[in-house]
Amino acid sequence: MRASRPEQAPPAAPPLRIGVVGLGMAGALMVSVIRDHARAVLAGAAEPHESLRQRFAADNEAPVFADIESLLRRDDVDAVYIATPHQFHRDHVVLAAEHGKHIVVEKPMALSLADCDAMIAAAERHKVTLIVGHTHSFDPSVRVMRELIASGEYGKLMMLSGANYTDFLYRPRRPEELDTAKGGGILFNQVPHQIDTVRYLTRSRLRSLRAATGILDPRRPTEGNCSVFLDFEDGCFASLTYSGYDRFDTDEWHGWVGEGGYPRKAAHGATTRSWENFKNPEEELAARVERFGYGGSAAPASRIPVHQPHFGVLIASCEKADLRQSPDGVLVYSRDGVKEIPVPMRPGRPGRSDVLDELCDAVQCGVAPAHDGAFARGTVEASLAILKSAQERREVIL
Amino acid sequence: MRASRPEQAPPAAPPLRIGVVGLGMAGALMVSVIRDHARAVLAGAAEPHESLRQRFAADNEAPVFADIESLLRRDDVDAVYIATPHQFHRDHVVLAAEHGKHIVVEKPMALSLADCDAMIAAAERHKVTLIVGHTHSFDPSVRVMRELIASGEYGKLMMLSGANYTDFLYRPRRPEELDTAKGGGILFNQVPHQIDTVRYLTRSRLRSLRAATGILDPRRPTEGNCSVFLDFEDGCFASLTYSGYDRFDTDEWHGWVGEGGYPRKAAHGATTRSWENFKNPEEELAARVERFGYGGSAAPASRIPVHQPHFGVLIASCEKADLRQSPDGVLVYSRDGVKEIPVPMRPGRPGRSDVLDELCDAVQCGVAPAHDGAFARGTVEASLAILKSAQERREVIL
Repeated sequence: MRASRPEQAPPAAPPLRIGVVGLGMAGALMVSVIRDHARAVLAGAAEPHESLRQRFAADNEAPVFADIESLLRRDDVDAVYIATPHQFHRDHVVLAAEHGKHIVVEKPMALSLADCDAMIAAAERHKVTLIVGHTHSFDPSVRVMRELIASGEYGKLMMLSGANYTDFLYRPRRPEELDTAKGGGILFNQVPHQIDTVRYLTRSRLRSLRAATGILDPRRPTEGNCSVFLDFEDGCFASLTYSGYDRFDTDEWHGWVGEGGYPRKAAHGATTRSWENFKNPEEELAARVERFGYGGSAAPASRIPVHQPHFGVLIASCEKADLRQSPDGVLVYSRDGVKEIPVPMRPGRPGRSDVLDELCDAVQCGVAPAHDGAFARGTVEASLAILKSAQERREVIL
Repeated sequence: MRASRPEQAPPAAPPLRIGVVGLGMAGALMVSVIRDHARAVLAGAAEPHESLRQRFAADNEAPVFADIESLLRRDDVDAVYIATPHQFHRDHVVLAAEHGKHIVVEKPMALSLADCDAMIAAAERHKVTLIVGHTHSFDPSVRVMRELIASGEYGKLMMLSGANYTDFLYRPRRPEELDTAKGGGILFNQVPHQIDTVRYLTRSRLRSLRAATGILDPRRPTEGNCSVFLDFEDGCFASLTYSGYDRFDTDEWHGWVGEGGYPRKAAHGATTRSWENFKNPEEELAARVERFGYGGSAAPASRIPVHQPHFGVLIASCEKADLRQSPDGVLVYSRDGVKEIPVPMRPGRPGRSDVLDELCDAVQCGVAPAHDGAFARGTVEASLAILKSAQERREVIL
């Protein structure tokens, strides 16, 4: 495979026919991304909830199945986007590889390194592309930051500092999303965005980390806040803070543009109060499926963002400049002052469509993906090391 | 001594007669603070630079000397504020204690734990009060945060996250201020503000830390940026980031109110460009003394702040709320939304006058100071541990 994106436009390959496995929030979003993508077509879906299948069938001509294997058996499906609950990622990826399908699997790749290894081996054995995403490391402004760093104009990248304070813990949840052993909580669902991004920017191997975590609300018994210090082999270091308790909100420091690129207003505590109105876990689960799943009232599929997506604030300090994502580009702070390098909004959904770009580039043009299984395994390794460091109150060497 | 400030106003003790040792930037500021303080009077000064002595003599009736001992021999001096270069702190504190003077010494207390021990022992032997300050842990909004945490209303303090990006490295400097071994750089001059503040808020012993530091500009060959993870005995943890390279500026996240409480404008790189205009180190040294010393054009002594002082951004996450300094108080974010607890501007200079409050409370009312020698020694220990952790790339247990 080639090491980087070809400079010319890709050859006129037939569009990649992609099926979506799981029509929850991530899958629902990807349906519209596939439909909008110039180099892909929507080839089908698989989803166990009948109500979501009906909504999908009403909107799309592509077939929809209750089980993954019916989708995987189709000859008119080249690749699948797997957005099933975390505990199924390994089996579904291995199954897809065995059916010769190229794969994008949602983060976290898996919950153990053994599972990651099995997924990587299956993809290699069956010669299919395996990409893990979306994470916010796919955001166009992150990629531009990476290219600015790689240009050498600002010297070596030395320090990264990131923080994200959100309402994550109080969004409607399935029970397993509150169980760390089943991949619940921020360490497998939120912090990987930050870890992926700093690893993508540094391009260096993570040498060690020291972390601590918190479970601040016993009603949501999984990690909801953490602080991580990361030391990279090349001498770069990073500090990441996350809190999902719906209190302070870092979007204030990002011009009140939300994670997805939409303008929003301050709403401290509103998600908590809304969650407290659920009468029981069943009502919460129904809301999770109905509201956040395909076609639901809270599903962001139909809105096209007007700003770039982001995941909190992140300052990248190079020898000669600090770089920072802004709502519409990358800010460069140096002895010459501050300038903004605009990142144009292209058609489609920034970040998510970049996942498909990476898939199409790999399958259609032979470009090695940056977010392959080996890269994603490193982020799972980091998430597990955060848990270990917090439990043992010591630095973990990777 | 008593454990906390008396609830009643202090008895009508005669004002504390305070001499200032060193009329550089910190000393110059303290002269006006003493003059404005209801329970103190300015009793004299000592300063080796003749031009600064002349300016002081023109403004004040109190005597001014070229050497510290002439000031210490005065019977009409009860206490001294020592703001001499760091390398003199130990000798000057011991000398002041031997003369029976109460002492406030600027941070860093000293550059070694042996020196700290000698200073603490001298104060105990001669039964004088020893306070180390000013640091931004004296800021009124920090004290209000501490009291809010101690009230228990928001549950236990669990996580702290702080960041400060400034122009520190490019302000005019004496040569030793760029030599880490002589106490130069951010680890002894800037990060202690952050360490003091998180230690003051947690009230817990620091158990370990993991840190990395950077020297990004060879023209300023001392640590200019760092990232520190701190683990406290009671389970609270903190993440601190600092960069003094005049690029990104965290005052943007604090409503463009500067460290001292003044409204300001964005000026990324301006301090660097101004410094690059110095023809040689002698010109820089002269600017350091003349402009930043007593009565200089850049000395902030004559301006009274209109907002509370601060030192970057700091989020304190308790079990039930996040607390954050605002320009005029403390923001409390919880499930009930956000509210601001105002911190009224009292006459005088917030933060600096609180140092004198602590001194007067100790000397006049017998209240044990929070910022005593033992407390400050802990922050010196942390600064030294940051250096060690960065050099050895490993966690340091304290």
